[in-house]
Amino acid sequence: MIKRLECLVTTLFNNVLPITEQVNGYMGKISAGRNVFMYPMPVTLLGTLVEGKPDFMALGWITRVNANPPTIGCGVGRHHHSVLGIEMNRTFSINFPSAEMIEKTDYCGLVSGKDADKAALFDVYYGELGTAPMIAECPLSLECRLEITVENPTNNFYIGEIIASYTEEKYLTNHKLDIRKINPLLLTMPDNRYWRVGDYAGDAWDIGKTLKTK
Amino acid sequence: MIKRLECLVTTLFNNVLPITEQVNGYMGKISAGRNVFMYPMPVTLLGTLVEGKPDFMALGWITRVNANPPTIGCGVGRHHHSVLGIEMNRTFSINFPSAEMIEKTDYCGLVSGKDADKAALFDVYYGELGTAPMIAECPLSLECRLEITVENPTNNFYIGEIIASYTEEKYLTNHKLDIRKINPLLLTMPDNRYWRVGDYAGDAWDIGKTLKTK
Repeated sequence: MIKRLECLVTTLFNNVLPITEQVNGYMGKISAGRNVFMYPMPVTLLGTLVEGKPDFMALGWITRVNANPPTIGCGVGRHHHSVLGIEMNRTFSINFPSAEMIEKTDYCGLVSGKDADKAALFDVYYGELGTAPMIAECPLSLECRLEITVENPTNNFYIGEIIASYTEEKYLTNHKLDIRKINPLLLTMPDNRYWRVGDYAGDAWDIGKTLKTK
Repeated sequence: MIKRLECLVTTLFNNVLPITEQVNGYMGKISAGRNVFMYPMPVTLLGTLVEGKPDFMALGWITRVNANPPTIGCGVGRHHHSVLGIEMNRTFSINFPSAEMIEKTDYCGLVSGKDADKAALFDVYYGELGTAPMIAECPLSLECRLEITVENPTNNFYIGEIIASYTEEKYLTNHKLDIRKINPLLLTMPDNRYWRVGDYAGDAWDIGKTLKTK
């Protein structure tokens, strides 16, 4: 069944304005505004070397971009200190902290590398690129070489090739990374809350096979 | 403490090869290969109109890209049927299914719109753009207008402006979207498992304040 929805009201959404506008015409749908973040984002720490000093920034706007070669992309506000390091060295790292690192991770989103030595919180190491600092305490780190910069009005989107990854035996089950052992954090906005990964819900590319005969 | 890691072994990672290569030189770190997916991805359904017919594709490679105007980006394999619709209409939708929709959602990742009428599984509606089909059963849908296409070797990365969003009162708490009511799915690869969002872990931009004096 296909229907056309006349969306009469579009509003900008922020942390203050409640959602009250009714979208006319379709089954009780209402607008959540345009600036919507409400899906679970992975919580990561973006590692850069800025003027010779390692820095780490909390980052939730991240996704895989290309399958082969493997690339990852991240949206970084232009005002961030990290931008200097990415653009100077053309390298960065993506570190996945465990839920046990919640306070240090959140702190990295509260203060700027301009003002604070965030690297002092961690045991920092470098891989083959030499200018992408990584965090030893993180269960998983990706070392990336910048390939493409997409300049957007407020945020640059950096696409980098994954050159190497670093983990430890204790995060594996049957020789594969195990999300329950990595125990990462998720973030929702604008309620600004961290969440853990919850229960197993099913097997992908499998559970839907029951519908294949229909 | 800063150390240099000599990464002697970099391997391609897939579903078959176990992780056995030892990365020399730093605190027991080993390689997880380059093609790493092991973080929780949001499970979405990408809505497109292909040759006049609505189609929905399972999509996990997605992130917010720009803050203002609000844009979202998604990595889509070039071979997918959805590519035709995005490039013809320059519109698409992002739909967030609830965990209750796991079978239909997974099915959308198992079959191609070339061969199956996936829209028949859902109650489909359109918003103001007119060519971005959305799923009424999904707790949240975003209607997007294509702004930028980044062509990568195997996947195009489509950046679209969020023109409108659609939800329902029952997914709100105190006038805000509530992730526990939306109850979305997460995906990890290459173990190919779906997960629910788990327990609340803390407040973002807050729980790290305890470290501010250090």
